[in-house]
Amino acid sequence: MKRRDILKGGLAAGALALLPRGHTQGALQNQPSLGRRYRNLIVFVYDGFSWEDYAIAQAYARRRQGRVLALERLLARYPNGLINTYSLTSYVTESSAAGNAFSCGVKTVNGGLAIHADGTPLRPFFAAAKEAGKAVGLVTTTTVTHATPASFVVSNPDRNAEERIAEQYLEFGAEVYLGGGDRFFNPARRKDGKDLYAAFAAKGYGVVRTPEELARSNATRLLGVFADGHVPYEIDRRFQGLGVPSLKEMVQAALPRLAAHRGGFVLQVEAGRIDHANHLNDAGATLWDVLAADEVLELLTAFVDRNPDTLLIVVSDHATGVGGLYGAGRSYLESSRGVDLLEPQRASFEHMLRVLGQAPEASQVKEAFRAMKGVDLEDAEAERVVRAIREKVYWPEGVRQGVQPANTLAWAMAQRNAQKPDRPNIGYSSGQHTASPVMLLLYGQGLRFVNLGLVDNTHVFRLMGEALGLRYQNPVMSEEEALEILKARPQGMRHPEDVWA
Amino acid sequence: MKRRDILKGGLAAGALALLPRGHTQGALQNQPSLGRRYRNLIVFVYDGFSWEDYAIAQAYARRRQGRVLALERLLARYPNGLINTYSLTSYVTESSAAGNAFSCGVKTVNGGLAIHADGTPLRPFFAAAKEAGKAVGLVTTTTVTHATPASFVVSNPDRNAEERIAEQYLEFGAEVYLGGGDRFFNPARRKDGKDLYAAFAAKGYGVVRTPEELARSNATRLLGVFADGHVPYEIDRRFQGLGVPSLKEMVQAALPRLAAHRGGFVLQVEAGRIDHANHLNDAGATLWDVLAADEVLELLTAFVDRNPDTLLIVVSDHATGVGGLYGAGRSYLESSRGVDLLEPQRASFEHMLRVLGQAPEASQVKEAFRAMKGVDLEDAEAERVVRAIREKVYWPEGVRQGVQPANTLAWAMAQRNAQKPDRPNIGYSSGQHTASPVMLLLYGQGLRFVNLGLVDNTHVFRLMGEALGLRYQNPVMSEEEALEILKARPQGMRHPEDVWA
Repeated sequence: MKRRDILKGGLAAGALALLPRGHTQGALQNQPSLGRRYRNLIVFVYDGFSWEDYAIAQAYARRRQGRVLALERLLARYPNGLINTYSLTSYVTESSAAGNAFSCGVKTVNGGLAIHADGTPLRPFFAAAKEAGKAVGLVTTTTVTHATPASFVVSNPDRNAEERIAEQYLEFGAEVYLGGGDRFFNPARRKDGKDLYAAFAAKGYGVVRTPEELARSNATRLLGVFADGHVPYEIDRRFQGLGVPSLKEMVQAALPRLAAHRGGFVLQVEAGRIDHANHLNDAGATLWDVLAADEVLELLTAFVDRNPDTLLIVVSDHATGVGGLYGAGRSYLESSRGVDLLEPQRASFEHMLRVLGQAPEASQVKEAFRAMKGVDLEDAEAERVVRAIREKVYWPEGVRQGVQPANTLAWAMAQRNAQKPDRPNIGYSSGQHTASPVMLLLYGQGLRFVNLGLVDNTHVFRLMGEALGLRYQNPVMSEEEALEILKARPQGMRHPEDVWA
Repeated sequence: MKRRDILKGGLAAGALALLPRGHTQGALQNQPSLGRRYRNLIVFVYDGFSWEDYAIAQAYARRRQGRVLALERLLARYPNGLINTYSLTSYVTESSAAGNAFSCGVKTVNGGLAIHADGTPLRPFFAAAKEAGKAVGLVTTTTVTHATPASFVVSNPDRNAEERIAEQYLEFGAEVYLGGGDRFFNPARRKDGKDLYAAFAAKGYGVVRTPEELARSNATRLLGVFADGHVPYEIDRRFQGLGVPSLKEMVQAALPRLAAHRGGFVLQVEAGRIDHANHLNDAGATLWDVLAADEVLELLTAFVDRNPDTLLIVVSDHATGVGGLYGAGRSYLESSRGVDLLEPQRASFEHMLRVLGQAPEASQVKEAFRAMKGVDLEDAEAERVVRAIREKVYWPEGVRQGVQPANTLAWAMAQRNAQKPDRPNIGYSSGQHTASPVMLLLYGQGLRFVNLGLVDNTHVFRLMGEALGLRYQNPVMSEEEALEILKARPQGMRHPEDVWA
């Protein structure tokens, strides 16, 4: 990385990215400021959350639950705007580059954590906050070592190196780590056989593995790991009785431990599996993870009300799938049925696939859809699902929807009657992230006159810095430089092999 | 309609809609105000414009044109927020109910113009403005008698009764009508043989039918009708040389005529075919209509700068199709190719279908895609297109994408290579409107501290009323009452038979 890039400073970084070389005109410089400082900072990330997801959850809450989402009330009353999400070289970001933008204030190439494509490490915001005396917490429904939380505390060229990231967490020493990812901590599951649980315990952490242990623990520092991989979807926790804590229960455990810290705290909460449900085009799973996030929002705003020296930033990192409730019936008069038809859903595709196993019969598939999605499949649809699971022949063909069994399940759910839907009239643009601007919302005392508008995602870093009075500049890489590096190493950073980015 | 509903007033109308009966808690009352009055009002409607459309146009302008959209600059610097778009009984609105919400300030059932489902007429805002002495203009790329412009000036139970609406326009007497729709004015095309052109001319209108006539006309009042139906897409006007004015040229003709009026004016400009291109999942056509709208935005903001007693409201009425640029390649590093691959596009599907006629050969289809979309179809894809056109066998099956030949053309365009796209990696959630919140933006002097946030679409009516000091209340219908009416008449208002709502 060239010295001049570091010196140039970062103000124009987001603005210049993805402009043709040599063009700098009209660069965006929208940098709204808070106008005050706070002691505590909570960043609540809705991962993979689009405005279409918002609309469906808003409709479900109003129509099926007789209430208004906390998020709807906040969007009406508190400063909010949109963020541009593109990464340094791609109009579609993945979660690590998005996390880096929030955490480090600069655009990076997709794939690494708090690092540039040439290996230049960046200083993540929560690391700076810790040095400044803040307690740190990470709470998520993904593996606790996943990109969005990890990008706030450690630097690593490979977001998928989660065994190593677990060790970095040990070295980093946050007060609270809660989420999934047993396979990165458990000696019986780690490739190197190291016992990270024992290592955390030796450093004074209470290590908890079940909701009961979480509720009982008196430890001031906490490592909670509640699933082998990601924590199950809320729809499965709630209706299938899976024994994991809700995101709200995890946040309830984190807050008092962090609030007890004299110097204040920083906390990232991630509703991480909204993204995964959208990757799989699983509208019921998305809905319930958004509703679970809304319970957390109630909790966090109540905390801010009681602790007015706290700033809450609510933000989506990118849209995924973009599953929209679409118009149905004459003059679209039957459209709202899609909301009603979500009500019988009782499990995610992930759970259904677990239940169906490796070699289901068509009759079992039909029974599973009836019981868990409230939908009567036709024989041909059930057969397609059987072939997807048994033979890995996915349907529909093509790359838009991704290439895994769950996408065939999503296809099988699709509405067949244009006039009167008997299945949710919700369609997906793809099984991937998209380029659209997403939500940014601020909640805290003294924010009444903050106009946000459209900002770059790197500006979240500056808002955090202003909130805590903690300003610094990470080195900036130009798009040109990144493209040169990628030309020589076309796979980019070490990259995820899985289909979820 | 019950008298008490009229008396109750409209403040809670948007808030209560689509809540379960009896539930009123948490009703939204976000009603930001401007804090000042204006002499002139311009409402610029992006019809069917989603945040995904925004992202693609933003990326195209930056990456392929080396510039920043006027819309991007405005979103960064001027008050903007989101609007809820649902109609009185449906979470997915169509354009007439959306237009009514803007124009009349109350929720209505999908399908009628400035009217409730029981026939109670509503007073559209531009009619009130005319009575208060304002000159009125309607400029659009759809038929000039289409739902979005018509809902601002006339009441009609059937948005599709465009012959009648043309007569209502004559009675109404706006200063400027510019758009498409010859078949509703031309005696040779109208079912009743009436010569509306002659009738407008007799009332003192200059009647123009070509860009040249538009440019030459000295008439102070103007009827311009430039196409049999809708005005062709910008992509076809620009690259196929179709002889119609651009939206910018129409607005350039309208503004001085309206500005000459001593009492001030109200003008609706509609970029109306963004919606149509999205219905057909035609990303290239959408892009160029959004870019054409951006030129108009430049023009309108320059007008406001020169005439600071003017308020400009920019608003989308709903999202359509939700065509998202989705992640491609490892770590999504190939995603931006979708933007580059839009550049060779030279025609809309609408134009291609016209060129291909009723009985094309596969070779002609391949040649058309190569020349007009920059894509080499495989034989099987071309054959599907042939069958769609010749036999009306559409692909893929199912209702999500709609049921017309263009949807098969859109399918044929879909990317087949997940690693390195050779076609734009843009996917659609459906061929219909969706429920997501959409853009609201204000531009005018003295608006710096207006916080918008999430508002109901009916609030646009109140913003217009505050701007001109013109406040009144249209009768409110409850959702319960509307549902009772629809139960007896399940087709709702007389409804559009076409697939575009």
